[in-house]
Amino acid sequence: MSYFDNFLKTNQAYADLHGTAHLPMKPKTKVAIVTCMDARLHVAQALGLALGDAHILRNAGGRVTEDVIRSLVISQQQLGTEEIVVLHHTDCGAQTFTNTAFAQQLQRDLGVDAGDWDFLPFSDVADSVREDMTLLRQSPLIPADITISGAIYDVDTGRMTEVKV
Amino acid sequence: MSYFDNFLKTNQAYADLHGTAHLPMKPKTKVAIVTCMDARLHVAQALGLALGDAHILRNAGGRVTEDVIRSLVISQQQLGTEEIVVLHHTDCGAQTFTNTAFAQQLQRDLGVDAGDWDFLPFSDVADSVREDMTLLRQSPLIPADITISGAIYDVDTGRMTEVKV
Repeated sequence: MSYFDNFLKTNQAYADLHGTAHLPMKPKTKVAIVTCMDARLHVAQALGLALGDAHILRNAGGRVTEDVIRSLVISQQQLGTEEIVVLHHTDCGAQTFTNTAFAQQLQRDLGVDAGDWDFLPFSDVADSVREDMTLLRQSPLIPADITISGAIYDVDTGRMTEVKV
Repeated sequence: MSYFDNFLKTNQAYADLHGTAHLPMKPKTKVAIVTCMDARLHVAQALGLALGDAHILRNAGGRVTEDVIRSLVISQQQLGTEEIVVLHHTDCGAQTFTNTAFAQQLQRDLGVDAGDWDFLPFSDVADSVREDMTLLRQSPLIPADITISGAIYDVDTGRMTEVKV
């Protein structure tokens, strides 16, 4: 059984309501949000974004990786964004393991040596937000005049709280 | 001026309606969706996802990178997902440049040598979906019994169409 067919079916009803309209490729608010893949965070709803408003980048933890920098450079230099929000959240999967234990698990269960991989786990969510804001600030590919903010999203209450560097 | 303060303000109203409820960390549908950061795609709405339903991974283009593999391994081996949907879309920013031209632009505008970076642009969106589905299928970190589907989202109509490998 696959959920993909359900998504296709549900999407047909969404598309019927969507109608046809062409929005510009460049995000209206000029913001890119870097956040976690977590299933309990619906970014557009939680931040009040309309279609076309902001780029949304998501990976495990909402961590700043080379792929996030790649995406932000495209977002900024091709598509005009000027602001970044780093949004991590409470009760994150990235807080449930260590690299060493996870590498052992992958060796055991998949037969793959992932000993040199950093899966970017973290302990304190405010620290991880600050760490990633600092990585962005230090990147030569992110101009100094880009605004960078940070916040924590509470998956139990839906509330976002600012984190300062 | 920063949009972050607007998001914080809008979020307070969202949180008031959200109430307090603890959903499990593991996604209910056991699906992870790999898609683009594009501002015109609201994944949860377009696929009919409720809070807690699915992991959503997003980068420029919705491309399968090392960071996406990192995130999917956590999604599958820590959080129990068993299905992946690769969802690219029409009118994508990744179709508007070449690596060579973009590296020249970054050298000129940022003074940074990005000559060896692959920003993962593509020409044909069905081909890019198939390419990324194949990368997932070939990764030793993605077990053979994981279901992998692909689709294209039309940003003008909101409609999703399946792509077969």
